[in-house]
Amino acid sequence: MQFHLNGFTPGDPQVFAAAPNAQAQQAHGHLPLEVDVLIVGSGPAGLTLAAQLAAFSDITTCTVEQKPGPMEKGQADGVACRSMEMFNAFGFAEKLMKEAYWVNETTFWKPDPNAPQNIVRGGQIYDTEEGLSEFPHVILNQARVHDYYLEVMRQSPSRSEPFYSRRLLDVVVSPPDVAGPTDHAVTARFERLDAPYEGQIETVKARYVVGCDGARSEVRKSIGRVLKGDSANKAWGVMDVLAVTDFPDIRMKSLIQSADQGSILIIPREGGYLARIYVEMDKLDASERVAERNITVDQLIDTANRVFHPYSIDVKEVIWWSVYEIGQRLTDKFDDVPEEEMATRYPHVFIAGDACHTHSPKAGQGMNVSMGDAFNLGWKLAAVLRGQSSPKLLHTYSQERQGVAQRLIDFDREWSKIISARPKFAQDVATDGYDPKQFQDYFVQSGRFTAGTAIQYAPALLTAHGQHQHLATGFEIGMRFHSAPVIRLADGKPVHLGHTVLADGRWRLFAFADAANPAAPNALRKLCTFLAESPQSPVRMFTPEGADADAVIDVRAVFQQGHHDIELSDMPAFLLPRKGKHGLIDYEKMFCPDLVSGQDIFAMRGVSREQGCIVVVRPDQYIAHVLPLDACDELSAFFASFMTMPEKLS
Amino acid sequence: MQFHLNGFTPGDPQVFAAAPNAQAQQAHGHLPLEVDVLIVGSGPAGLTLAAQLAAFSDITTCTVEQKPGPMEKGQADGVACRSMEMFNAFGFAEKLMKEAYWVNETTFWKPDPNAPQNIVRGGQIYDTEEGLSEFPHVILNQARVHDYYLEVMRQSPSRSEPFYSRRLLDVVVSPPDVAGPTDHAVTARFERLDAPYEGQIETVKARYVVGCDGARSEVRKSIGRVLKGDSANKAWGVMDVLAVTDFPDIRMKSLIQSADQGSILIIPREGGYLARIYVEMDKLDASERVAERNITVDQLIDTANRVFHPYSIDVKEVIWWSVYEIGQRLTDKFDDVPEEEMATRYPHVFIAGDACHTHSPKAGQGMNVSMGDAFNLGWKLAAVLRGQSSPKLLHTYSQERQGVAQRLIDFDREWSKIISARPKFAQDVATDGYDPKQFQDYFVQSGRFTAGTAIQYAPALLTAHGQHQHLATGFEIGMRFHSAPVIRLADGKPVHLGHTVLADGRWRLFAFADAANPAAPNALRKLCTFLAESPQSPVRMFTPEGADADAVIDVRAVFQQGHHDIELSDMPAFLLPRKGKHGLIDYEKMFCPDLVSGQDIFAMRGVSREQGCIVVVRPDQYIAHVLPLDACDELSAFFASFMTMPEKLS
Repeated sequence: MQFHLNGFTPGDPQVFAAAPNAQAQQAHGHLPLEVDVLIVGSGPAGLTLAAQLAAFSDITTCTVEQKPGPMEKGQADGVACRSMEMFNAFGFAEKLMKEAYWVNETTFWKPDPNAPQNIVRGGQIYDTEEGLSEFPHVILNQARVHDYYLEVMRQSPSRSEPFYSRRLLDVVVSPPDVAGPTDHAVTARFERLDAPYEGQIETVKARYVVGCDGARSEVRKSIGRVLKGDSANKAWGVMDVLAVTDFPDIRMKSLIQSADQGSILIIPREGGYLARIYVEMDKLDASERVAERNITVDQLIDTANRVFHPYSIDVKEVIWWSVYEIGQRLTDKFDDVPEEEMATRYPHVFIAGDACHTHSPKAGQGMNVSMGDAFNLGWKLAAVLRGQSSPKLLHTYSQERQGVAQRLIDFDREWSKIISARPKFAQDVATDGYDPKQFQDYFVQSGRFTAGTAIQYAPALLTAHGQHQHLATGFEIGMRFHSAPVIRLADGKPVHLGHTVLADGRWRLFAFADAANPAAPNALRKLCTFLAESPQSPVRMFTPEGADADAVIDVRAVFQQGHHDIELSDMPAFLLPRKGKHGLIDYEKMFCPDLVSGQDIFAMRGVSREQGCIVVVRPDQYIAHVLPLDACDELSAFFASFMTMPEKLS
Repeated sequence: MQFHLNGFTPGDPQVFAAAPNAQAQQAHGHLPLEVDVLIVGSGPAGLTLAAQLAAFSDITTCTVEQKPGPMEKGQADGVACRSMEMFNAFGFAEKLMKEAYWVNETTFWKPDPNAPQNIVRGGQIYDTEEGLSEFPHVILNQARVHDYYLEVMRQSPSRSEPFYSRRLLDVVVSPPDVAGPTDHAVTARFERLDAPYEGQIETVKARYVVGCDGARSEVRKSIGRVLKGDSANKAWGVMDVLAVTDFPDIRMKSLIQSADQGSILIIPREGGYLARIYVEMDKLDASERVAERNITVDQLIDTANRVFHPYSIDVKEVIWWSVYEIGQRLTDKFDDVPEEEMATRYPHVFIAGDACHTHSPKAGQGMNVSMGDAFNLGWKLAAVLRGQSSPKLLHTYSQERQGVAQRLIDFDREWSKIISARPKFAQDVATDGYDPKQFQDYFVQSGRFTAGTAIQYAPALLTAHGQHQHLATGFEIGMRFHSAPVIRLADGKPVHLGHTVLADGRWRLFAFADAANPAAPNALRKLCTFLAESPQSPVRMFTPEGADADAVIDVRAVFQQGHHDIELSDMPAFLLPRKGKHGLIDYEKMFCPDLVSGQDIFAMRGVSREQGCIVVVRPDQYIAHVLPLDACDELSAFFASFMTMPEKLS
């Protein structure tokens, strides 16, 4: 955390100074008439986007929610490791780590082969593969995740808050021949639901509209897109309960498959007492909807008790419960530009989260993928609106995220099938059930996927081809930057390299040094000279005059030597940039491997000791490029393909 | 963190439900006429005490501060590891870890033997010995520590806030023959300093008054005690600056001794740019006061530049600066009862922090020892006021803390002498200077002391003799409970055992199991049976009817086996206590060693595998007793020596 750069400021450093226009964005009175970005919906996707955009006081954003206020009790609860990494960029991962339930292990229960009416523990595995992420997989009420985003927004320079009690009526985009690139081309109308304004219509004109308004998205309908898919005709119940049970793994994530009473999934919850229980209910007829069954919570509890046999559960309080059908649905494109018009139009309306994809809740993916959508889109909108990048960047949102959603849907379909399958016994080769062992294996295999760390964007504008991937085999292009521990050279502090990537819209270049003595001429020094001095340097080209050198592209170096083995004063001045009104030195650009603990980032991530490399990381923590240290031309060309030169200050 | 025990509660679980009387304690309007505890001063000692007492809504507390509002820019900044452990009990250690500067290493600079006008780095050591604490030594503006305490208070059941702008006029204690044990025996008068109330006199009657009102404490004067000591006739300057320098260790804690220009101590500060610099100034004449020298900040900067040679420092902004004389002063007793009357009277007035002891700031001890005073006193006052313990407990405060302060004073005197001594060179055997190596060695030796982990209370009412110390050599009686990592049995979560000790006034019994199979009859099971069933069980004797079993004494068990090697359902029901209105099971009482990471708490803390043991931990995290698992009589006798039976509910 860096602060006090321009003088001492009392109080919480996470509360930013309010921008002069901050008042205008606050939630009293009417909706603004014109904004840069209109966000419809304040669920996980909407708030991720709103929190991201709130960091930029030069962008006006308005978040509108149909409900009368912030959520108090949410239904989503799974926070994958990858989402924790993103929360860290927003500054609240450690709060979740403290408050949430940690999914450390998963246990598998199956029918006792000797007494199939009883369940027995069949296996116990680490929920998250060792080293997959520096963050745990946690479970926390969605409403609390919302609270943390709302806090980020309130403490941001924009001081933004959602506007509540407004129902979206329609969204209209001006035809492309009418709207200029900087026009407020989209018009949205809302109806107020709050007395004494009930029924009043408000109209907002926006440069961009993002529909984070759920499975029944009005924004999606307005751009003529549909959720396509099917339902599996299988009813499941879910309940959040305070209960007393003799089932010993009630505080472990547990998958229970009984011989003939169906399956249960237990997700322990935050606070030490609460648990979520998914209960497999009846198979539905082809045309039947689950609502027609009139399933009650008592039926869920009875079914659970039958599955638990010989254990039992005494539910003392039901906090929330629901019955749902499994179904997977997906929208084919996440913006308003038809495939065939992509060459001639830029998108102005986007959809994210459940508006694009819905699926069953049991793999705990929904909230995570939705937030991932918004984190992907947020920095792109900011870069375009702030004049840093060409609007063609915006095409990449649907390109990247639609594929992720498709893989999620495929996974969920398979997962739902497996979890509902009857377990078969070893002697039972003829049936089509799953061997519980097979089930457990599938769970282990899909671990990276459910952790959110398997997502890989295909080569495109923002994702290079892997020509130089061999220079850093553990930093895969198109995947998220997998952090590793390092020691900060200037103060010897053990830190995580990836935690330098904050949700601030900046790009990062991690320059891993070659083996040569860093005090002598070497490839890293040459790169620094290029970045500092060449007219082709992307740092020079794309950083506005008067801004700090790291305002657009933040360059950090990692050496191979231990931090006692090299001298700060021998390092290039470019890595000790002068910043702020006093021209103070930023000492946080150089890192060394943590050799004492044996965690050498070069070894952990397969970075070439011989050659070193550059790892280019996007503002959303995904790796865009891996390059040799001397590939200055390629580096320039990459940024020049989408970045735009800042206008000269007048 | 445990919550939702009595039903789901929306919002931040660290914000407690307000007690019915919470409003009465808020800071609007006049001071209350009567309170249980009156705290004078809202510095680190006053706020530690106020935050501790705020946890108990059945105790009324009033904190009064002379200044007009919360501190914005403090002068203390060092937070020792031990204080971080205490902050963890209050729930905000992780916030400090994020915001503060971490003192990872300390560098030592000395005159270059070949060119003594220049300084060179002479050594570099870890600031904190490996394994000394699970928390780092950090540096953070005192005002931010205050903020965190104020947040704890505001979120507590009492919703308490200090009353500002009141100057204490006097404190009068009714003579002991007049005051009954439960009377409001102390009367304090305050003058309001805030318009439009300026000059108004307010009178508060209190059961107990605690003077946390600094070196010029009015409370101390009111009980006729004085700070005694001397000054070292040596002027030092201190400044918090934003500066540009080529001195390479400006982000390391650095001790610089020049050949003949004096010494400098650099303490880097939070935020990455700010640094505190202590500069040795002139020796004063015997009767001279530092104020007479009229030293300016420019002189400090000039002196610093001479010491830094061949490096230089360009100070861009001075945030705060001061000049002070080194002096060590101590009060002989920290309460109002003369030594000779201790057998016949209980104390009603206490002093804590700078009111008891003052010393030089450079060892970073002041704030820490002050907070330690208050943490020692807080739970004792609460236990007496809540009827859980005899008032004789209150004598132990001065007994324990005066000795700590004496050792601090002794250390500080030695430390100040060493840091001001001229360095001598190897060839220079005749002079009385310190060899820089000797200096560094002294620093290393005193590391445990400055970390605050060396404090050990002598055997007395609350600290047993070490008859059974051999059962747990790493849990030394009278010292703080040194936490170690464990795995929680029920959910496989890696946690720190010591982090179960919260600032909630409860005692903890850590029962380390013997080697026998925990599913079979063994010493731990016998202990559980005794605690659950015997009329002599301190848990049964001292827990009020209707309260949860762990409300007064919280029993936790640590097994020797890995958490996959034992079954939760085989464990005694006493370790799965039923709590709250629903009688839900508390699953967080049992732990296993972290065998996978190789951190076996039995090995780390020298716990007898053969016999196991009981470690009794006070509410302030200090170890009161180590006992064999079967020492039921001794355990009962220990608690019976100061605890009182709860009144029956009518």
